[in-house]
Amino acid sequence: MKPPSIRIVEVSPRDGLQNIPSAIPTAEKIDLIRRLAQCGLTSIELTSVVSPRAVPQLADCREILDHETVRRLAAAADTTMRLPVLVPNAKGLEIALQHGAQEVAVFVSATEGFSRANTNCSVREGIERARCIARKAGGVGVCVRGYISCIFTDPFSSAATTPPSAVLHCTKELLSMGCYEISLGDTLGTATPGQVRSLLAYLSLHGIPMARLAGHFHDTYGRGLANVWEAYRCGIRVFDSSVAGLGGCPFAPGAAGNVATEDVVEMFCREGIETGVDWGRLLETRAWVEGTLLRRI
Amino acid sequence: MKPPSIRIVEVSPRDGLQNIPSAIPTAEKIDLIRRLAQCGLTSIELTSVVSPRAVPQLADCREILDHETVRRLAAAADTTMRLPVLVPNAKGLEIALQHGAQEVAVFVSATEGFSRANTNCSVREGIERARCIARKAGGVGVCVRGYISCIFTDPFSSAATTPPSAVLHCTKELLSMGCYEISLGDTLGTATPGQVRSLLAYLSLHGIPMARLAGHFHDTYGRGLANVWEAYRCGIRVFDSSVAGLGGCPFAPGAAGNVATEDVVEMFCREGIETGVDWGRLLETRAWVEGTLLRRI
Repeated sequence: MKPPSIRIVEVSPRDGLQNIPSAIPTAEKIDLIRRLAQCGLTSIELTSVVSPRAVPQLADCREILDHETVRRLAAAADTTMRLPVLVPNAKGLEIALQHGAQEVAVFVSATEGFSRANTNCSVREGIERARCIARKAGGVGVCVRGYISCIFTDPFSSAATTPPSAVLHCTKELLSMGCYEISLGDTLGTATPGQVRSLLAYLSLHGIPMARLAGHFHDTYGRGLANVWEAYRCGIRVFDSSVAGLGGCPFAPGAAGNVATEDVVEMFCREGIETGVDWGRLLETRAWVEGTLLRRI
Repeated sequence: MKPPSIRIVEVSPRDGLQNIPSAIPTAEKIDLIRRLAQCGLTSIELTSVVSPRAVPQLADCREILDHETVRRLAAAADTTMRLPVLVPNAKGLEIALQHGAQEVAVFVSATEGFSRANTNCSVREGIERARCIARKAGGVGVCVRGYISCIFTDPFSSAATTPPSAVLHCTKELLSMGCYEISLGDTLGTATPGQVRSLLAYLSLHGIPMARLAGHFHDTYGRGLANVWEAYRCGIRVFDSSVAGLGGCPFAPGAAGNVATEDVVEMFCREGIETGVDWGRLLETRAWVEGTLLRRI
């Protein structure tokens, strides 16, 4: 019997790029998205409709969404592409919809400290903001994905670890507002496999289906893949990752890059687990990223 | 109940340094060993008594063994220090013994290709060479540790994967010649957690006690810690690692560094598993390594 396959949500065009200080030309971002799609990645987070003051790198979000390449990918009949756009608030949603987004992502923090630092509001206010976006998006038939940040630790809260109950609360809220999938973010990369197992067991015990969750791990301390693997063993089948391990969060001091897509694909591939990603093309894309985007860092 | 603790075998003074092309002064190597011991590491592989033509970096092996600091560590009454010295042949053993080594390590390859490339002999001849060393060492009360290279893949053999039976054969041979512990080396870092689990289950099924094994993982593809963790779950309690992830093998093209000691220690520490290592001092040592030894690369 073949082991269950996984789906990768490629987050490099958003989570991967937002931390790069020098401006990357829109054409290069489009090239990145095009190359990622050619690798067989069917979920690609395109950008974030965020204030250019907050994240200058993503100031061209409208151009990205309007670009012919992106429009073509979204309209492709032969594959079902998911091309989520991160939206922090109602205004962001409005712009995303105006520019043709068919899927958006909302985010909340499991901790007060990060919620305040990242979005200048409490966790409760953040949830209400996400609910407002989800309601409007749902009303026009746009899918919504949810992110929860800081599921284990937070750089700003005094508590050493995030209570699992806080993650459960956010997960329930995001599911109740209609998110089809909740991406659990170990924003700082501090998680250990044992913690991943404990948290997932806790969520499962409280009725959260593993099929509605995704794992979003950062590789700050080298445990990214160990956590991905443990999550897979616990029933998680969707993982966020970023080609070449691009990433980090401008609002989370000490956070390193996302787990690298090529590392995730290679591990699962060697385990005989399908990812749907073309390994050779992915390596070409990594080489291109290293020669082009990372040249700028 | 506390989870079982682990022991780390720090291999940076040998496996970590041998791949650095520029000569490191003996005094710096001694400083590294001293700092590692101060971290609470109680197993430190000192050097290899190898031909300076084969590994120029370790040409000062005699000076290392003779050094007052090393002698003092070996004689320390308050802790039981294990200070193995890698010896490739009978001549190496003779020199190691002349210079006061109280423990040696022998190595064999599980694959013909690497055995030929690394030691210019067949696997069978390599085992006989190791047996000859182990017999002589045992005869003078010197402990022997065994290494098996290429337990999953080999850069020189045509077969894609190493047969588990080859690893079992080498393990049995090393145990039969009196090695107190066998370090299983994923020399190229290609292992996946599933492969680690399969191999250990196979060895266990064939009567190899997990308590006699150690895991030696490289982090070439980011799976080092995933493999360490999986091995721990399978009952392995000893892991080879190298501060700052120093390492790689001069005879194995494509091999990256050993799994980093600080990453191993941090992961187990966060899991509530004792390593006996002082985390703060280890970070200081890493910073020293980065500022001193790695400056030369």
